[in-house]
Amino acid sequence: MSWTDNRLCKLLGVDLPVIQGGMVYMSGAKLVAAVSNAGGLGLLGSGSMRPELFREQVRKTRRLTDRPFGVNIPLLFPNSREILEISLEEGIRIVVTSAGSPRRAMGPLKAAGCTVLHVVANPALAVKCEDAGCDAVICEGFEAGGHNGREELTSMVLVPQCVRAVSIPVVAAGGIASGAQWAAAMALGAEGVQIGSRFAMTEESSGHSAYKAKVAAAGFGDTMLMLKRHVPVRMLRNAFFDRVAEFEARGASGDELAELLGKGRARRGMLEGDVEDGELEIGQVSGMIDDIPTVAALMLRLAHEYDQTINRLARS
Amino acid sequence: MSWTDNRLCKLLGVDLPVIQGGMVYMSGAKLVAAVSNAGGLGLLGSGSMRPELFREQVRKTRRLTDRPFGVNIPLLFPNSREILEISLEEGIRIVVTSAGSPRRAMGPLKAAGCTVLHVVANPALAVKCEDAGCDAVICEGFEAGGHNGREELTSMVLVPQCVRAVSIPVVAAGGIASGAQWAAAMALGAEGVQIGSRFAMTEESSGHSAYKAKVAAAGFGDTMLMLKRHVPVRMLRNAFFDRVAEFEARGASGDELAELLGKGRARRGMLEGDVEDGELEIGQVSGMIDDIPTVAALMLRLAHEYDQTINRLARS
Repeated sequence: MSWTDNRLCKLLGVDLPVIQGGMVYMSGAKLVAAVSNAGGLGLLGSGSMRPELFREQVRKTRRLTDRPFGVNIPLLFPNSREILEISLEEGIRIVVTSAGSPRRAMGPLKAAGCTVLHVVANPALAVKCEDAGCDAVICEGFEAGGHNGREELTSMVLVPQCVRAVSIPVVAAGGIASGAQWAAAMALGAEGVQIGSRFAMTEESSGHSAYKAKVAAAGFGDTMLMLKRHVPVRMLRNAFFDRVAEFEARGASGDELAELLGKGRARRGMLEGDVEDGELEIGQVSGMIDDIPTVAALMLRLAHEYDQTINRLARS
Repeated sequence: MSWTDNRLCKLLGVDLPVIQGGMVYMSGAKLVAAVSNAGGLGLLGSGSMRPELFREQVRKTRRLTDRPFGVNIPLLFPNSREILEISLEEGIRIVVTSAGSPRRAMGPLKAAGCTVLHVVANPALAVKCEDAGCDAVICEGFEAGGHNGREELTSMVLVPQCVRAVSIPVVAAGGIASGAQWAAAMALGAEGVQIGSRFAMTEESSGHSAYKAKVAAAGFGDTMLMLKRHVPVRMLRNAFFDRVAEFEARGASGDELAELLGKGRARRGMLEGDVEDGELEIGQVSGMIDDIPTVAALMLRLAHEYDQTINRLARS
């Protein structure tokens, strides 16, 4: 396939319309640089970094690649303003904002000449993003790992509704771990994909090896969207998941759930490798991920599967 | 597109790999015959018919079309055995079974020379279907209307896992109301699609006009999967929905939910048009359905959109 006319590739300055999701505890310099070097767009996941660590990771990424890369900034996180300032100081020019209003950070980002994408879970927010001046939207379906929308719109339903609602490029996220799923997203009208779980499961991802082993072993029904009355999060079944399920079954309040969650649960599970009492965020598609390739091998595989899928469809 | 080599078309003897879901209160002779006459496969929805009405509807359908059509039989329904006997007596040779074990009805169906498809919501059940002798499986994602699986697997994730798990044709269902969505399903490896909500919203569907008007007006977040502790059902927001949500928020038991549901809720909503106190089953894709075309016009639209989508993908 040739992507020379693809609007997302032009916007981001990349060869392939594939963005690596900026995931907490997974997306440090090594992963980001590997994805950008392979022709996609790597995103640093600032959500799990203290400001100084983030600055280090930006500099490290720059040493590892001369290709474009960006950062994901969850706007509702306490240090998001500081992360944003560091991003601009360090010369980052592609910013993906999430978890908050797209309008909030737009002024300084646009003044600095940044390309801005915002993550949405429904078409109404996609329209707000376009109105606010976003260059593209990333629409993330119910099947995605980690934090998730309240409407539970799946990628199959969400993507075409966002495509219909806005004229800026729509990037599909949620449930994409193969070239066939990438092609399906493009059939729905997306102009690119953001891939999370599949990149979390690469050699270069900074997730703990015990976390990766647990995800590789997971079957089709092993993630569920939990904590809906607090902040909806898709997580993998383990002892902590069972406790959350227990609390929810007896109608526990948001406050009780917040207390159970506590501080550092995700760090414990994903970075420190406590796969029973930690929170293990991953997408529903983990049921079909069972290896841990290098990013370069994975990108070749995805591109090959994509081409095969399009050729199969065109032949029929 | 040419479908002459499509395995599902050959199996069913139809021109297009499009099955109309056998939906309660929607899928009588008029809808079924219209779909079959337009080149797809119509399915009578026996789940909402008493045996004698069902026999009448089979005969009526046969008067309206000389093309293949079939029946959906929810195996857990009390009169499923009688419906099955009538189907065979009346010469039906395509049977879609759902809600129960695929093995249960296989003996008599295969002895009578029937083509049998079973509806599944996870890849493990797809394997059981293949082992039991099913000719194809219909895998129905979380976004589908009405009864739904417990694993909440979305079409984007479910379809490729079923395709990987079995060698019989996989039909995708859930979230398909446009040619782009049909193409996405084929990209995922499906060899055909089953479409429910979009056919419920046609002139020929026997749903009440007030139900159709309510669905046409629905927005993107207006369905949710409810009654998970009883029998998971995707339904449209209305006064009844709010009552269910209330019960669930306070952790009501399956028995309490069953009592609230009572008898005839779905009939009241979908056939009698009580759109506030009735149960309105419909898929998540209803958020992008806003007209009520004839089946013939709809099939032309879907085929046109499908071709456009494939051509767009092949050009890139």
